[in-house]
Amino acid sequence: MPYNDLFLRAARREATERTPVWMMRQAGRYMAEYRELRAKYGFLEMCRTPELVVEVTLQPVDLIGVDAAIMFSDILISFPGMGLDLEFAKGEGPVIHNPIRSATDVEELRVADPHETTGFVMESLRILRRELADKVPLIGFAGAPFTLASYAIEGHGTRDYEHTKALMWVEPVLWDALMNKFADTTIAYLNAQIDAGAQVVQLFDSWVGYVAPRDYERSVLPYSKRVIDEVTSHGRKAVSGGVPLIHFANGATSMLNLVQQAGGDVLGVDWRLDMRHVVETIDTRFGIQGNIDPVALFAPEAELERMVAEILEAVGTRPGHIFNLGHGIHKTSDPEKARTMIRLVHEHSARIRGGCDRSQA
Amino acid sequence: MPYNDLFLRAARREATERTPVWMMRQAGRYMAEYRELRAKYGFLEMCRTPELVVEVTLQPVDLIGVDAAIMFSDILISFPGMGLDLEFAKGEGPVIHNPIRSATDVEELRVADPHETTGFVMESLRILRRELADKVPLIGFAGAPFTLASYAIEGHGTRDYEHTKALMWVEPVLWDALMNKFADTTIAYLNAQIDAGAQVVQLFDSWVGYVAPRDYERSVLPYSKRVIDEVTSHGRKAVSGGVPLIHFANGATSMLNLVQQAGGDVLGVDWRLDMRHVVETIDTRFGIQGNIDPVALFAPEAELERMVAEILEAVGTRPGHIFNLGHGIHKTSDPEKARTMIRLVHEHSARIRGGCDRSQA
Repeated sequence: MPYNDLFLRAARREATERTPVWMMRQAGRYMAEYRELRAKYGFLEMCRTPELVVEVTLQPVDLIGVDAAIMFSDILISFPGMGLDLEFAKGEGPVIHNPIRSATDVEELRVADPHETTGFVMESLRILRRELADKVPLIGFAGAPFTLASYAIEGHGTRDYEHTKALMWVEPVLWDALMNKFADTTIAYLNAQIDAGAQVVQLFDSWVGYVAPRDYERSVLPYSKRVIDEVTSHGRKAVSGGVPLIHFANGATSMLNLVQQAGGDVLGVDWRLDMRHVVETIDTRFGIQGNIDPVALFAPEAELERMVAEILEAVGTRPGHIFNLGHGIHKTSDPEKARTMIRLVHEHSARIRGGCDRSQA
Repeated sequence: MPYNDLFLRAARREATERTPVWMMRQAGRYMAEYRELRAKYGFLEMCRTPELVVEVTLQPVDLIGVDAAIMFSDILISFPGMGLDLEFAKGEGPVIHNPIRSATDVEELRVADPHETTGFVMESLRILRRELADKVPLIGFAGAPFTLASYAIEGHGTRDYEHTKALMWVEPVLWDALMNKFADTTIAYLNAQIDAGAQVVQLFDSWVGYVAPRDYERSVLPYSKRVIDEVTSHGRKAVSGGVPLIHFANGATSMLNLVQQAGGDVLGVDWRLDMRHVVETIDTRFGIQGNIDPVALFAPEAELERMVAEILEAVGTRPGHIFNLGHGIHKTSDPEKARTMIRLVHEHSARIRGGCDRSQA
């Protein structure tokens, strides 16, 4: 098999002969091979052990056939290095035992040095680049400032963000200091990932969809924009042609105009947006990543095929489309169905983009 | 105090001299007076006891100063009458012990006769109309077919809707039969509420925001539309001038065009939409209800005032605005802050709509 750079070309908005596809959370619990390992190791232990990171990252490349590898890790992996006491409690998701609630908490929070505190990530990326040299491109990632701040403030997942929004509204100076610490941590972390070999990076703003547009504009956008600008600038210096950045503002369906202002090379969109609307709304200078409903993997093949085709036909031959789920793959999904989806994306997109092969890129 | 019909006039899209305001879940846990009663009675027991329904419904009218009363009940209150074994487990929200998973389950589901199975609701409404005669208008409500079906199929709250979407995609004939049973139940239930004195009815599609627009269009919209059309038609026959219907499709931020097709006199919008965008997008034949972030009640007054003013200024003097939270009031909200919000809405909207008093309506 020759090296498959379809994903990298699409992320650079070059024309491709078919649409690359990967899945958020593709290295994870829906795969028996992952669950076998997970039964033996704690989640954070796995994230911190390069041999395990490499093994788990490669599983969906080898077994599912995705067009890109995303390093196995977690968006909160920098928290311990910042002084946040992170635990993945069984069945509860992440818990931060010392959530940020006061000016002193903000002051004591450290900007994490990625090499000192998450060196295992950079080591994993270096190994992965070697292992993947003849396969597919490698994606690094980090959490966006708002999503990180909301976990640090609430101390756990939530649908309300009461403490987060209270801090944002009541203490704008403190909010600014806090968001800058997360922005600085994320910038240094993503830059280090680029230096270690990440060929594309994705910024996850997983929970920003719970923020009203005006609050996003005033209190979130400037920090995401700074991360995107500085990481993009670093990527241009570090790598010829630059390192494309995918900006995934999950649930931000009503503020695509603001998400575009924050920037990125490719905008990730969730499944609640009709792709026809996305293509009309998002400027052609951006690539688009998405956006099938993750639950579509529970549909029979004919229905799945209809949904895949609908998205691909809405995008047409516009360059820079990366097919993905609109959110992470569900843990009860059937890996065989994921393989089917990837085949359908490849078949249908080759039909649509048929005339547009690599030589024309 | 003369009878305050501000809300009813706004729901009819008549000009008003100030903007009426009520809060979703205004009869509920944030009030000590409610919690005192709730300590003595089970949740369903309270819903089924007219004296308690009346007392709890009136609490926010008397103590918070809202411009409308909404009967205390639950969107799932028709479930037992349909054959669904509903329980409100402590701290868990609703649980349906016999969720719908097969053709036989759908077949056995009954269209509930509202008088036989939820007579206590109609009795409560009749008492409330008498009690409220000199105060404010009375709102009835029901769950929309999709939201009801999703609870009945999943058996509890979820963020995924795996079983619901699987049924929708895999078994369209079964889905149609199921949605029609919920639509028929809701139509009969809302019509009975109108006959018992509800002056406005709200249709809650609380979880439809998890559905992709194409799925909404194909598999949800036709049933909501039928409910809205038939209830509106019944209201026109039953009450001179008709009974306005508020259609609240929570989270449907990316498909306002489709929500408009489903209909209603007033469209409820959640806080994730910028009101400037809402006013531009929603046709002037609709009233608008919403949409401050419920978490705004945790902000200091100056910030709350800024947010209230922003929404009211975006709406301007457009007739038919009903101020509300973008979702239910949080249980830890301070009732005093809710009173403050209501005062701020009244003050600012009187300033904006000052020239537009009742005589011009």
